[in-house]
Amino acid sequence: MKHDDTIVALATPAGAGAIAIIRLSGVEAISIASEIFESVSGKELMKQNTHTVHLGHIKDRDRVIDEVLATLFKNPSSYTGEDVVELSCHGSNYIQQEIIQLCLRKGCRMAKAGEFTLRAFLNGKMDLSQAEAVADLIASDSAASHQLAIQQMRGGFSSEIKELREQLLNFASLIELELDFSEEDVEFANREEFQKLIKKITVVLKRLIDSFATGNVLKNGIPVAIVGEPNVGKSTLLNALLNEDRAIVSEIPGTTRDSIEDEITIGGINFRFIDTAGIRETEDLVEGLGIRKTFEKMEQAQVVVLLLDASIVKSEKFSVNGVNAEIEKIKNRFPQKQLVVIANKVDEISEEQIKNLQSTIVDLQLMSAKTGEGVDELKATLLDFINTGALRNNETIVTNTRHYDALLKALEEIYKVQEGIDSDLSGDLLAIDIRQALYHFGEITGEITNDDLLGNIFANFCIGV
Amino acid sequence: MKHDDTIVALATPAGAGAIAIIRLSGVEAISIASEIFESVSGKELMKQNTHTVHLGHIKDRDRVIDEVLATLFKNPSSYTGEDVVELSCHGSNYIQQEIIQLCLRKGCRMAKAGEFTLRAFLNGKMDLSQAEAVADLIASDSAASHQLAIQQMRGGFSSEIKELREQLLNFASLIELELDFSEEDVEFANREEFQKLIKKITVVLKRLIDSFATGNVLKNGIPVAIVGEPNVGKSTLLNALLNEDRAIVSEIPGTTRDSIEDEITIGGINFRFIDTAGIRETEDLVEGLGIRKTFEKMEQAQVVVLLLDASIVKSEKFSVNGVNAEIEKIKNRFPQKQLVVIANKVDEISEEQIKNLQSTIVDLQLMSAKTGEGVDELKATLLDFINTGALRNNETIVTNTRHYDALLKALEEIYKVQEGIDSDLSGDLLAIDIRQALYHFGEITGEITNDDLLGNIFANFCIGV
Repeated sequence: MKHDDTIVALATPAGAGAIAIIRLSGVEAISIASEIFESVSGKELMKQNTHTVHLGHIKDRDRVIDEVLATLFKNPSSYTGEDVVELSCHGSNYIQQEIIQLCLRKGCRMAKAGEFTLRAFLNGKMDLSQAEAVADLIASDSAASHQLAIQQMRGGFSSEIKELREQLLNFASLIELELDFSEEDVEFANREEFQKLIKKITVVLKRLIDSFATGNVLKNGIPVAIVGEPNVGKSTLLNALLNEDRAIVSEIPGTTRDSIEDEITIGGINFRFIDTAGIRETEDLVEGLGIRKTFEKMEQAQVVVLLLDASIVKSEKFSVNGVNAEIEKIKNRFPQKQLVVIANKVDEISEEQIKNLQSTIVDLQLMSAKTGEGVDELKATLLDFINTGALRNNETIVTNTRHYDALLKALEEIYKVQEGIDSDLSGDLLAIDIRQALYHFGEITGEITNDDLLGNIFANFCIGV
Repeated sequence: MKHDDTIVALATPAGAGAIAIIRLSGVEAISIASEIFESVSGKELMKQNTHTVHLGHIKDRDRVIDEVLATLFKNPSSYTGEDVVELSCHGSNYIQQEIIQLCLRKGCRMAKAGEFTLRAFLNGKMDLSQAEAVADLIASDSAASHQLAIQQMRGGFSSEIKELREQLLNFASLIELELDFSEEDVEFANREEFQKLIKKITVVLKRLIDSFATGNVLKNGIPVAIVGEPNVGKSTLLNALLNEDRAIVSEIPGTTRDSIEDEITIGGINFRFIDTAGIRETEDLVEGLGIRKTFEKMEQAQVVVLLLDASIVKSEKFSVNGVNAEIEKIKNRFPQKQLVVIANKVDEISEEQIKNLQSTIVDLQLMSAKTGEGVDELKATLLDFINTGALRNNETIVTNTRHYDALLKALEEIYKVQEGIDSDLSGDLLAIDIRQALYHFGEITGEITNDDLLGNIFANFCIGV
């Protein structure tokens, strides 16, 4: 992968603001910046120290485009490890575009998605999992996803992998050394120590692989299906969850075309609420279709909230058996999913009716979304479903599908190594399995890589990162 | 206006990006930043030089929020003239908010709209018209609006006003000095020189006041009403104008609820195209309403483009007299407005039919928006209507309504001074008129100001500027 050219891109979000930053990186970053930047003090940019800031004007020949600050980062003390210049200009769309166009005319190339971070990786400023964490960090929108990303960016995950890899590599070398002396029947690699290491690696890999279930939902938000009739108070509930927490609500397009998901942060963790219809038995064809859709949506959820309208106990249509049948149906169909049953609008019924409901429906939570009663309890219940212990204890949590796949493959190879040890496999065959495991470790941190893999990873970045 | 506290705000556009900047300004900017920033090198931020950049972590007690760059600007060498710290963090919405919240907890106050620039003005880093230009610069979206803003920000306008003000102030002082020696009948102020200055000021003020007509449209875009039947090819024309110029198109909500304006940049100047219906005579009540609306929209325009469908010459409904009547009607109703009459779809009629049209309709421009014929001619015609000479010659152009008002008032006072000179008015009365003129000059540059005025001006800024 060639990177002897100089790239440029807008590094700040698109749009107008007080300040925008245009970043140049590469061998000619400083010389190109010098061509278009005229310092107010008259000093030459080329001769300034790294990590210094200079006031001046961006000029296209005689035409002044803006008054800017130019910040110098000299190779290797920069984000990319190359010479970097950051031009901090007034945040007008027009000025941003004019300066970028000018840089392009002076010999810069427009940066591709993630190319600054790719260069940082290629220049050894960070390993591959740290580079991937940069994109996660920028996308993070809750305390949990932020904590996971920053932990990974600071190398918590890869340092653990690297250490195991080094120890394993050491044994691989010793075992391969034995092969050179095979006629002398020596054992450089202490088999007991090796056995211990393989055990340790197995434990760590299993823990990391298990953590993915938690990591994945913490990063992407926990999908919660709310099952309930249209008038049951779903939006009041969502607003109640929202208002109390001053959380971020956004409407993100759902996985199905006709559904909109509400994203709410509770206790620093994102929950994605999927709206569904009820699932009571029906002979009606149209409602039957609705039920199939409801099941499809519940399939995507990790938690199912069955929201009942408590006020219907006053109506003749209400039947405790009907509700319990509905609960059973959900439990039978989705035994793995967490279920919360809530009776909303309890402010509209009497104490006795409440007691009656509680005695006939198991684990019923009471709520009045309108008055706020029971909202905190629901929050606590939702948070209980998540293994936040790992997060609190700052344990390494895997959030990336690519890492998860590599860890699974590494574990498979480690099992083979274990089998080899158990069956006294010859050193040369053992070495092959160890090398395979090492390969998958290396894929995570980027010691093993190729252009296709890097292309796939960085294509998901934004331009300017 | 008190500014002994430290303010904080996001300085880059809202949203996610590679980098976001959080700016602190005030007496405690560096000490507050030091509390939350831990340098990687272990150096203390307080002891570093101005205009230097430092890598480190933002920490809330033990919790790492982000790896950032902290840039130091020491009073008075900063944008605001106060101590300033810019924290360049990863551009996640969550991180931006967490760092701002942390700064607030440590004693910062959330900056009000335009408060950084207000402080720059109050600390003498720029005058009031330069401060106003900062907001214009950030909002600039075309070469013309950008050039006007940067000229004003660099002081082109205010330096001209300041020079005149100083010369006038000098005469005012001399005339007032004469009053102290009134019994001796001396004349410190050379009346001939004074007369010359007043003449010069009158000329400059008139030129500046006249420039506002140009400046205002260059800054806000030139409104063009396109009058034409729905099927006459308006959108094809707009696309043709657009494609050729690779300009920015945006849909901005029109001044009336039911209209959408297309904004197109031609030759670096913004044109706002307002869509209207035709205006032919009709007995129909509904269409009558349409005509009233059309006239209302034409009222807002500076240029009226009457777009005709040339292909209707083939139809029996077509009447040259009807078209000429329509043209006359527009000319009579809006004698001040520039009118362009265009026959579109000339590709659909014969050479002879074209000649016939041209001979019966005065100043008819031919066009085929579909093939692109005549589009460049229309652009040239539109640009001809604007006094771009002043722009090319880099003359001072007034774009701000507040400045325009102050200039009008100043000119009024200067006329009184002239009358005073002509009628040998006594020095004490002359001095009063001069002081009034000086007052209005001072309003522009901010020597004369008050909290209400400043409040009004900076309320229109964004937060973070």
